[in-house]
Amino acid sequence: MGFFSKDIKTLDDLFVHTLRDIYYAENQIVKALPDMVSKATSPELKQGFEKHLSETKTQITRLEQVFEMHGVKAKQVHCPAIDGILTEANEVAGEIDDPTVLDAALVAAAQAVEHYEITRYGTLVEWARQLGRNDCAAVLQKNLDEEKATDKKLTALAESRINMRAAE
Amino acid sequence: MGFFSKDIKTLDDLFVHTLRDIYYAENQIVKALPDMVSKATSPELKQGFEKHLSETKTQITRLEQVFEMHGVKAKQVHCPAIDGILTEANEVAGEIDDPTVLDAALVAAAQAVEHYEITRYGTLVEWARQLGRNDCAAVLQKNLDEEKATDKKLTALAESRINMRAAE
Repeated sequence: MGFFSKDIKTLDDLFVHTLRDIYYAENQIVKALPDMVSKATSPELKQGFEKHLSETKTQITRLEQVFEMHGVKAKQVHCPAIDGILTEANEVAGEIDDPTVLDAALVAAAQAVEHYEITRYGTLVEWARQLGRNDCAAVLQKNLDEEKATDKKLTALAESRINMRAAE
Repeated sequence: MGFFSKDIKTLDDLFVHTLRDIYYAENQIVKALPDMVSKATSPELKQGFEKHLSETKTQITRLEQVFEMHGVKAKQVHCPAIDGILTEANEVAGEIDDPTVLDAALVAAAQAVEHYEITRYGTLVEWARQLGRNDCAAVLQKNLDEEKATDKKLTALAESRINMRAAE
């Protein structure tokens, strides 16, 4: 981003900028997930985070595919939103000793991450369509569908066990 | 939060902490929305932001009601997530001159805010239920429903006009 000129002139520029924002975000998530796996107590939650780590790596590959299809360089731009979400997750987790309360906090943190990804992929799919890039939209839709499915699984996990045990 | 002790010991503590987190977030949103109203070009978007400003003020009152019902002090705790989301919205908006591209970016930014609120209220409703506070859950559910409705309206707005014009 330049300081003396307005760098985003068209919807295409905004699309590419947002693609680079989520590319940075996904890479930060890949770095954060192993720590969440090690902190989680519930075997289902641990397994869920492990599965999501593997999914996130595939999502990064899909983003690289979209950069290539759209003829732009795959690069990251700093995304203060995901940094804030992950900082907050770490801060809260650092305040908790009890393993079941920590599991409940980890699920909430993971859902905040999922919702950030859902909103960004939702926007990117819509913009890709408006730009006549249904091919890019179809690839981005796969990531969107996976994030929505992960969010649903986390909700089910929280409702069924983790919060119940934390409230005992 | 203390640096030498773990301050969140129970799900109740985590519930109160997250209530204070979203209370901070809603107050930051009230400060940010007038700027979004003034930047928006589309009359529907301007009007949508104005309506949401008024809704957000009501949501803050509901949060104060929940604090009172639960017998804890209504106070804010710093929420790096919403700070990051709002910083990113400002940074991107600052890079755009074209009014229709700016409108598309503002809708995307507002949807990121909505999704943060949706995830936090979803978590709070669930935790309130687990804690046997169905009365608090019912009040928080009102905020959750409003945020979901706002997100849907923003999606409809983006699909129908703003992105179409930006792509022209």
